[in-house]
Amino acid sequence: MDIPQKVNLAEKLASFSDYWSPKVVGELNGQQVRLSKMKGAFIWHRHDHEDELFLVLKGRLTIELRDRAVQLEPGEFFIVPRGVEHKPVADGEVEALMFEPATTLNTGQQRNERTIDNLDRI
Amino acid sequence: MDIPQKVNLAEKLASFSDYWSPKVVGELNGQQVRLSKMKGAFIWHRHDHEDELFLVLKGRLTIELRDRAVQLEPGEFFIVPRGVEHKPVADGEVEALMFEPATTLNTGQQRNERTIDNLDRI
Repeated sequence: MDIPQKVNLAEKLASFSDYWSPKVVGELNGQQVRLSKMKGAFIWHRHDHEDELFLVLKGRLTIELRDRAVQLEPGEFFIVPRGVEHKPVADGEVEALMFEPATTLNTGQQRNERTIDNLDRI
Repeated sequence: MDIPQKVNLAEKLASFSDYWSPKVVGELNGQQVRLSKMKGAFIWHRHDHEDELFLVLKGRLTIELRDRAVQLEPGEFFIVPRGVEHKPVADGEVEALMFEPATTLNTGQQRNERTIDNLDRI
Protein backbone atom coordinates (compact mmCIF):
# COMPACT_ATOMS: atom_id res chain seq x y z
CA MET A 1 0.00 0.00 0.00
CA ASP A 2 1.45 3.30 -1.09
CA ILE A 3 0.46 5.81 1.54
CA PRO A 4 1.05 9.46 0.65
CA GLN A 5 2.90 11.86 2.91
CA LYS A 6 1.07 14.57 4.77
CA VAL A 7 0.99 17.97 3.04
CA ASN A 8 1.81 21.30 4.65
CA LEU A 9 0.01 23.98 2.66
CA ALA A 10 2.40 26.81 3.60
CA GLU A 11 5.44 24.78 2.53
CA LYS A 12 3.85 23.94 -0.80
CA LEU A 13 2.82 27.54 -1.37
CA ALA A 14 6.36 28.73 -0.63
CA SER A 15 7.72 26.43 -3.34
CA PHE A 16 6.30 28.24 -6.36
CA SER A 17 5.54 31.77 -7.45
CA ASP A 18 3.87 31.67 -10.86
CA TYR A 19 0.32 32.92 -11.14
CA TRP A 20 -2.63 31.07 -12.65
CA SER A 21 -0.71 27.81 -12.78
CA PRO A 22 -2.40 25.37 -10.37
CA LYS A 23 -0.19 22.77 -8.70
CA VAL A 24 -1.49 19.35 -7.76
CA VAL A 25 -0.79 18.60 -4.10
CA GLY A 26 -3.13 15.68 -3.49
CA GLU A 27 -5.31 13.16 -5.32
CA LEU A 28 -8.25 11.13 -4.05
CA ASN A 29 -11.32 9.48 -5.53
CA GLY A 30 -10.55 10.81 -9.00
CA GLN A 31 -10.38 14.35 -7.63
CA GLN A 32 -7.41 16.63 -7.14
CA VAL A 33 -6.41 19.12 -4.48
CA ARG A 34 -4.71 22.01 -6.23
CA LEU A 35 -3.01 25.14 -4.98
CA SER A 36 -2.91 28.28 -7.03
CA LYS A 37 -1.50 31.78 -6.76
CA MET A 38 -3.57 34.37 -8.54
CA LYS A 39 -3.13 38.02 -9.34
CA GLY A 40 -5.36 40.18 -11.50
CA ALA A 41 -8.10 38.83 -13.71
CA PHE A 42 -8.38 35.41 -15.31
CA ILE A 43 -10.63 34.73 -18.29
CA TRP A 44 -14.32 33.89 -18.53
CA HIS A 45 -14.77 30.14 -18.83
CA ARG A 46 -16.94 27.25 -17.71
CA HIS A 47 -16.46 23.57 -16.95
CA ASP A 48 -19.26 21.65 -18.61
CA HIS A 49 -18.90 18.49 -16.52
CA GLU A 50 -17.13 19.50 -13.34
CA ASP A 51 -18.06 21.44 -10.23
CA GLU A 52 -15.13 23.46 -8.90
CA LEU A 53 -14.40 24.54 -5.33
CA PHE A 54 -12.28 27.59 -4.45
CA LEU A 55 -11.13 27.96 -0.84
CA VAL A 56 -9.23 31.19 -0.22
CA LEU A 57 -6.18 30.91 2.02
CA LYS A 58 -4.75 34.40 1.59
CA GLY A 59 -5.96 37.63 0.00
CA ARG A 60 -9.32 38.43 -1.51
CA LEU A 61 -10.73 36.61 -4.51
CA THR A 62 -13.77 37.64 -6.46
CA ILE A 63 -15.54 34.99 -8.51
CA GLU A 64 -17.46 36.91 -11.12
CA LEU A 65 -20.55 35.17 -12.45
CA ARG A 66 -22.72 36.54 -15.24
CA ASP A 67 -25.39 37.75 -12.83
CA ARG A 68 -23.46 38.42 -9.62
CA ALA A 69 -20.04 38.45 -8.01
CA VAL A 70 -18.97 36.37 -5.01
CA GLN A 71 -16.27 37.87 -2.81
CA LEU A 72 -14.16 35.43 -0.85
CA GLU A 73 -11.94 36.21 2.12
CA PRO A 74 -9.50 33.76 3.73
CA GLY A 75 -11.41 30.86 5.27
CA GLU A 76 -14.27 31.09 2.77
CA PHE A 77 -15.07 28.77 -0.10
CA PHE A 78 -17.42 28.78 -3.04
CA ILE A 79 -18.46 25.98 -5.35
CA VAL A 80 -18.94 26.92 -8.99
CA PRO A 81 -21.44 24.42 -10.40
CA ARG A 82 -20.68 22.75 -13.71
CA GLY A 83 -21.78 24.76 -16.72
CA VAL A 84 -21.67 28.10 -14.94
CA GLU A 85 -19.49 30.74 -16.55
CA HIS A 86 -17.10 32.33 -14.13
CA LYS A 87 -14.12 34.66 -14.05
CA PRO A 88 -11.82 34.69 -11.03
CA VAL A 89 -10.37 38.10 -10.21
CA ALA A 90 -7.67 38.46 -7.57
CA ASP A 91 -7.47 41.76 -5.73
CA GLY A 92 -3.71 41.73 -5.10
CA GLU A 93 -2.05 38.36 -4.63
CA VAL A 94 -4.36 35.52 -3.67
CA GLU A 95 -3.53 32.01 -2.54
CA ALA A 96 -6.29 29.47 -2.95
CA LEU A 97 -6.94 25.77 -2.65
CA MET A 98 -9.08 24.15 -5.30
CA PHE A 99 -10.86 20.84 -5.19
CA GLU A 100 -12.09 19.43 -8.47
CA PRO A 101 -12.00 16.35 -10.72
CA ALA A 102 -8.59 15.41 -12.11
CA THR A 103 -10.03 16.00 -15.59
CA THR A 104 -10.71 19.71 -15.00
CA LEU A 105 -8.93 21.96 -17.49
CA ASN A 106 -7.97 25.34 -16.02
CA THR A 107 -9.48 27.28 -18.93
CA GLY A 108 -12.62 25.19 -19.07
CA GLN A 109 -14.33 24.67 -22.42
CA GLN A 110 -11.70 26.56 -24.38
CA ARG A 111 -8.01 26.26 -25.13
CA ASN A 112 -5.84 29.32 -25.39
CA GLU A 113 -2.48 30.63 -24.29
CA ARG A 114 -3.47 30.28 -20.62
CA THR A 115 -4.38 26.60 -20.92
CA ILE A 116 -2.13 24.23 -18.97
CA ASP A 117 -2.60 20.61 -19.99
CA ASN A 118 -0.27 18.90 -17.58
CA LEU A 119 -0.33 20.49 -14.17
CA ASP A 120 2.81 20.22 -12.05
CA ARG A 121 2.68 17.95 -9.04
CA ILE A 122 4.57 19.45 -6.15
CA MET B 1 -29.38 27.07 -12.16
CA ASP B 2 -29.23 26.71 -8.39
CA ILE B 3 -25.97 28.30 -7.33
CA PRO B 4 -24.92 27.62 -3.74
CA GLN B 5 -23.94 30.37 -1.33
CA LYS B 6 -20.34 30.87 -0.32
CA VAL B 7 -19.33 29.18 2.93
CA ASN B 8 -17.45 30.82 5.77
CA LEU B 9 -15.69 28.03 7.70
CA ALA B 10 -15.49 29.93 11.00
CA GLU B 11 -19.22 30.71 10.93
CA LYS B 12 -20.09 27.10 10.24
CA LEU B 13 -17.75 25.88 12.99
CA ALA B 14 -19.32 28.29 15.47
CA SER B 15 -22.75 26.81 14.79
CA PHE B 16 -22.22 23.38 16.36
CA SER B 17 -20.35 21.88 19.27
CA ASP B 18 -20.80 18.10 19.19
CA TYR B 19 -17.73 15.97 18.65
CA TRP B 20 -17.29 13.23 16.05
CA SER B 21 -20.43 14.29 14.21
CA PRO B 22 -19.35 15.59 10.80
CA LYS B 23 -21.50 18.30 9.21
CA VAL B 24 -21.90 18.61 5.47
CA VAL B 25 -21.08 22.14 4.29
CA GLY B 26 -20.63 21.57 0.57
CA GLU B 27 -21.25 19.03 -2.18
CA LEU B 28 -19.60 18.69 -5.58
CA ASN B 29 -18.98 15.92 -8.07
CA GLY B 30 -20.43 13.29 -5.75
CA GLN B 31 -18.07 14.38 -2.99
CA GLN B 32 -18.78 16.22 0.23
CA VAL B 33 -16.97 18.88 2.20
CA ARG B 34 -17.48 18.11 5.87
CA LEU B 35 -16.51 19.90 9.05
CA SER B 36 -15.90 18.04 12.25
CA LYS B 37 -14.96 18.82 15.83
CA MET B 38 -12.97 16.09 17.49
CA LYS B 39 -11.77 15.44 21.01
CA GLY B 40 -10.05 12.33 22.32
CA ALA B 41 -9.83 9.09 20.38
CA PHE B 42 -12.17 7.77 17.71
CA ILE B 43 -12.29 4.08 16.76
CA TRP B 44 -10.21 2.00 14.38
CA HIS B 45 -11.97 1.71 11.03
CA ARG B 46 -11.39 1.69 7.30
CA HIS B 47 -13.29 2.77 4.20
CA ASP B 48 -13.05 0.01 1.63
CA HIS B 49 -13.97 2.15 -1.38
CA GLU B 50 -13.23 5.73 -0.41
CA ASP B 51 -10.12 7.81 0.09
CA GLU B 52 -10.53 10.38 2.87
CA LEU B 53 -8.81 13.73 3.30
CA PHE B 54 -8.34 15.42 6.69
CA LEU B 55 -7.29 19.08 6.71
CA VAL B 56 -6.67 20.41 10.20
CA LEU B 57 -7.96 23.94 10.88
CA LYS B 58 -7.36 24.11 14.63
CA GLY B 59 -5.57 21.97 17.20
CA ARG B 60 -3.45 18.89 16.64
CA LEU B 61 -4.79 15.71 15.12
CA THR B 62 -2.98 12.39 15.04
CA ILE B 63 -4.06 9.88 12.43
CA GLU B 64 -2.91 6.54 13.76
CA LEU B 65 -2.22 3.90 11.14
CA ARG B 66 -1.28 0.33 11.94
CA ASP B 67 2.38 0.94 11.18
CA ARG B 68 2.85 4.63 11.90
CA ALA B 69 1.19 7.79 13.15
CA VAL B 70 0.74 11.01 11.19
CA GLN B 71 0.62 14.21 13.22
CA LEU B 72 -1.25 17.11 11.67
CA GLU B 73 -1.03 20.75 12.68
CA PRO B 74 -3.29 23.51 11.35
CA GLY B 75 -2.72 23.98 7.62
CA GLU B 76 -1.70 20.37 7.07
CA PHE B 77 -3.68 17.63 5.38
CA PHE B 78 -3.38 13.90 4.99
CA ILE B 79 -5.17 11.54 2.64
CA VAL B 80 -6.03 8.11 4.06
CA PRO B 81 -6.22 5.76 1.07
CA ARG B 82 -9.17 3.41 0.76
CA GLY B 83 -8.74 0.17 2.67
CA VAL B 84 -6.24 1.56 5.17
CA GLU B 85 -7.20 1.18 8.81
CA HIS B 86 -6.95 4.41 10.74
CA LYS B 87 -7.85 5.90 14.08
CA PRO B 88 -8.07 9.67 14.49
CA VAL B 89 -6.95 10.94 17.89
CA ALA B 90 -7.45 14.57 18.85
CA ASP B 91 -5.04 16.07 21.34
CA GLY B 92 -7.45 18.56 22.92
CA GLU B 93 -10.16 20.00 20.70
CA VAL B 94 -9.55 19.77 16.99
CA GLU B 95 -11.42 21.34 14.09
CA ALA B 96 -10.96 19.69 10.73
CA LEU B 97 -12.27 19.82 7.20
CA MET B 98 -12.79 16.55 5.37
CA PHE B 99 -13.18 15.82 1.66
CA GLU B 100 -14.62 12.45 0.78
CA PRO B 101 -17.32 10.79 -1.30
CA ALA B 102 -20.89 11.40 -0.20
CA THR B 103 -21.16 7.66 0.44
CA THR B 104 -18.49 7.61 3.16
CA LEU B 105 -19.77 6.31 6.49
CA ASN B 106 -18.00 7.88 9.46
CA THR B 107 -17.28 4.52 11.08
CA GLY B 108 -16.17 2.86 7.86
CA GLN B 109 -16.78 -0.84 7.41
CA GLN B 110 -18.61 -1.25 10.70
CA ARG B 111 -21.73 0.04 12.34
CA ASN B 112 -21.83 0.79 16.02
CA GLU B 113 -23.06 3.40 18.47
CA ARG B 114 -20.82 6.00 16.86
CA THR B 115 -22.21 5.50 13.37
CA ILE B 116 -24.14 8.45 11.93
CA ASP B 117 -26.16 7.53 8.87
CA ASN B 118 -27.59 10.88 7.93
CA LEU B 119 -25.15 13.69 8.46
CA ASP B 120 -26.51 17.12 9.21
CA ARG B 121 -26.20 19.75 6.51
CA ILE B 122 -25.43 23.11 8.03
